[in-house]
Parts: sequence; structure tokens; C-alpha cells
Amino acid sequence: MTDKKLPMRQVYIVSDGTGLTAEALARSVLSQFEIPFQKIRYPFIDTPEKIQEVTEHLRQNRSHDAPRPIVFSTLVKPELLSILHQADALHIDVIQPLISKLAKELGTQAKQEIGLSHQQAASGEYEDRIDAIQFSIAHDDGQSHANLEAADIILLGVSRSGKTPTSLYLAIQYGLKAANYPLIPEDFERGRLPSVLQPFKRKLFGLSINPVRLSQIRSVRLPNSKYASIDNCRYEIQEAETIMEKEGISWLSSTNKSVEEIAATIVHQTGIGKRV
Amino acid sequence: MTDKKLPMRQVYIVSDGTGLTAEALARSVLSQFEIPFQKIRYPFIDTPEKIQEVTEHLRQNRSHDAPRPIVFSTLVKPELLSILHQADALHIDVIQPLISKLAKELGTQAKQEIGLSHQQAASGEYEDRIDAIQFSIAHDDGQSHANLEAADIILLGVSRSGKTPTSLYLAIQYGLKAANYPLIPEDFERGRLPSVLQPFKRKLFGLSINPVRLSQIRSVRLPNSKYASIDNCRYEIQEAETIMEKEGISWLSSTNKSVEEIAATIVHQTGIGKRV
Repeated sequence: MTDKKLPMRQVYIVSDGTGLTAEALARSVLSQFEIPFQKIRYPFIDTPEKIQEVTEHLRQNRSHDAPRPIVFSTLVKPELLSILHQADALHIDVIQPLISKLAKELGTQAKQEIGLSHQQAASGEYEDRIDAIQFSIAHDDGQSHANLEAADIILLGVSRSGKTPTSLYLAIQYGLKAANYPLIPEDFERGRLPSVLQPFKRKLFGLSINPVRLSQIRSVRLPNSKYASIDNCRYEIQEAETIMEKEGISWLSSTNKSVEEIAATIVHQTGIGKRV
Repeated sequence: MTDKKLPMRQVYIVSDGTGLTAEALARSVLSQFEIPFQKIRYPFIDTPEKIQEVTEHLRQNRSHDAPRPIVFSTLVKPELLSILHQADALHIDVIQPLISKLAKELGTQAKQEIGLSHQQAASGEYEDRIDAIQFSIAHDDGQSHANLEAADIILLGVSRSGKTPTSLYLAIQYGLKAANYPLIPEDFERGRLPSVLQPFKRKLFGLSINPVRLSQIRSVRLPNSKYASIDNCRYEIQEAETIMEKEGISWLSSTNKSVEEIAATIVHQTGIGKRV
């Protein structure tokens, strides 16, 4: 942290596609600096006319006393890039230097066509992903016991430990059939797994969470309830972890982890993502 | 396409985080070349010991007659990168050149800390995203009419036009409350929108799809059915597009688009993503 107030820097993200890759990379790089950034996205910039318009916006948005903007671009056509480069900015070309390096290594030319990275979506992979999403929705929060043997993974944890978003992310990003099942007070009284899950023990993966954080999350939904109280959250988490340890179920703590990180950790630890 | 058989190139994706950004970028760059690649992911490589192990794998996996592998890395700690660089490979360092450029421009040092880009996940954004996901699940396929006024968007289209994955992707990636509602034969007989949707016309966005593609997708689920027949798919699509045109509802064709592209296009066209 610095004491002097730093000026807000404008950051433009210009892509001939969705811009999601450029934005993720920009977020990752910018997070390394203690400076406020204002991000402006321009997706689907795929013609000379559109890139001309963006270049014009860059010029117009610039106030005289502000530092020059930063532009992250993923444009596969060099002719579009050269128009953008006419704007006064720090240009961070995310893709062309990588394409050049690879073309030299592979001894072949790049195709310079837009949208190629999404083409595999038209193959059977698309149906698999849809099936995985439908499965994960149908098996959210223990709603259905039918066809649990088809699950790639079954997430287990107390209410609000992150099971639902993680299941859906596993389905959407990794094409995995991810069911999830809640651990509830009745399970703690019995001190063992719900019996419906017993046959699928090797598919189970647990999510735990810091009780203070859990209490915060639950309080948004039901303030001043027993459900959200710190004592109850401590009790549920301790019981859930005890059951998981006793049954030999791998688990992780979702505290301070993004959904992306939780999902990637599960895929990494279990090895279930290999087929995708 | 070339006639001679090209050797499979090994591609390593080495990251100190989830590796998703590095992988998306690698996919985007590699798609520009007509060469078969075999991708191997190493996420969460965040200590000298782990990077040493990956470097060792790189050495061992290399057969003498194979061309050197390609390594995409997103490692924010230079000391980890320098260990990786000992391996014989084409190194494509995705992040360090960008950090150097920015440090120079901003006149400040990078923090070189791992995992910073996920930290915002701990803020209120996390709860918003969870709420959006719960909302989208509850309002999948017209299941609930309750609280539709809270929706950021309501997707509309015939069965299997891509509504469910798009809704969930909008929730997970953009934090948007995305309901979806099917157009069914009864709507086509009446030739107008389901009446429950009339009050929310400005929130509606349509998905259409090429009838041949729709018939393929439906045939996976119900082969040789009227539901999947090309005649019925042509009829449903024509009627759905007629209703959407008549009611002045914006729509796009999901044919040949990935879920990411459909979602990004909707956000771009409607401007609903601005608040995220």
C-alpha cells in the first residue's frame, strides 16, 4: 500500500471473440499491482470498421492529464491489430507474440482465422457437456437418488459449503457429471453417512468451510437464526469433518477459495478430469 | 490440411493456480495451427519442489526422436520459472513479460504473490454469484414463475436450443440471474408468448438453432421420435422465430456457437453485464 492517492488507470480489453481469455489474463496480471483499474471490455471486434470505432473511443475517452490507457488485445488478424496500434496506449498484445513463436517452432504458418478455439464445441463434446449440466441440476442438493452410479463425482458437505456452484462449474467447465448431497443434523445424530451414499463412497468428495465464514454466508439468508449462529456452524462443521475422516472421504476447505479454484483442486486431487 | 502425417506435439500447461487461463490461451493459440497436440496440465505448481518434479517429468517423457515439447506457463514467482526453464522445451511464458511491461509503465514493483486474482471471490461478489446460480437453477426450463421480476434476463426458445447451459453460464461467469422458458407446441398453436412472460417482455432474449442441428441433438435423446424429426424441428423453429419477430424479441442462433460465445454475445447485445 502507498499513501499517495494513485490515479485510476483505464484498461481496455479488446478481443475478436468473447474476450473472456483476455479478461482472465488481464485480471491475473493486474492483480499483481496495488493500483485501481477501470476495465472496459470490447468483445467480438472482428472487422476493420469495429476496430476503427474502438480506436476512436480510446482517443475520445482520454483526458489530457490522465496517463495513457492500457490495452490488452487478443486479435488474430494482424490487419486489425495494426489499426488498434494507432491509438496512444500501452499495448499488450496477448496473442500475436505467441503465434509468432509457435509458427517459427512448428515451421508452419498460422491460419489467422477468428473463432477457431470454439470449433470443437460443435462435436460430441457439446452433447456431453449438456448432459453433464442436466445431470448436475437434477442431482443438486440430494434432490434425486436416481442414477447416482452415473455420477463422476458426488460432493458432500453442510448447507452453504459451496456444493452447488462447484457442481455446476465442474459440469460446465470440465464436462463432469457432478451430483451433490447435503450433510444434515440427522446425519450428525447418527454419526454416519446417509445410507443412500454408502454404495458410492469412492465417488464422494467433501467440502468443508471455516465456521465463522459459514455463519456469515448463512446470515445473509437467515439472519439471527439458529441455522446461521456461530455455535451451530461450529457444531455442524466439526461433525461433518468427523464423519468424513471416519469414512475416509477426501475433502478440502472452500474458505477463501473461488469456485474455479475449488473445482480445479478437486479435479487435480481425484484425477477425474483426465478424460476431458 | 497437409498430406504428410505430422508428429503429435506434447504441450505442457504449468500454472501456480488453476491453470484455466493458461489453458484457454494455449487452446486459442494452438487452434491457429493444423497440428495434433497432446495437452498435459499441471495446476497448483506453487513450490520449488513441485516445479522440480514437473521439470523432471518433462525430461523423462521426452523420447529421443520426438520434437521438443511446448510449455505454456503462468508462474508469478521468477524463482519457480527459472527452475522450469532448465528443461529443454519451447518455453512460452504467458505472464512474466506482461508483468514486466506493466511494472515499467506503472513505475512500481509487482507483488509476485500467488493467487491474487481470486481474492475478490471472498467479497460480496461471491454471495451474488451463488444467488444467481440458485436463481438460475430454480428458474430452469420454466419450472418456477415466482420472482421472475428479479431476473436479469429470461431466455426463450424451443427444447434443446441451448437455454439451460447458457443460463447457468451467465450465472456462473457473469453473476447474472438468468431464467429460461421453453416455447412449446401449445404456444405455436396460440401463436403468441406464454402469458406469464408478457409482463417481462423487455427481459426476454431468444435462442434459435438450425433445424438440422436441432434434429441431431434431439435424436441423441429420443431417436426416431416425432420430437426429433426434421419436419417437426423445422416447424418448431419457424414458429418460434415468427413469435419472436412479432413480439420484437431479440434473438440469436446458437448453431455452431459454444456456450461461452452465446453468453458473451447476449451480454454484449443487451448490455446487462455492465454491473459485474
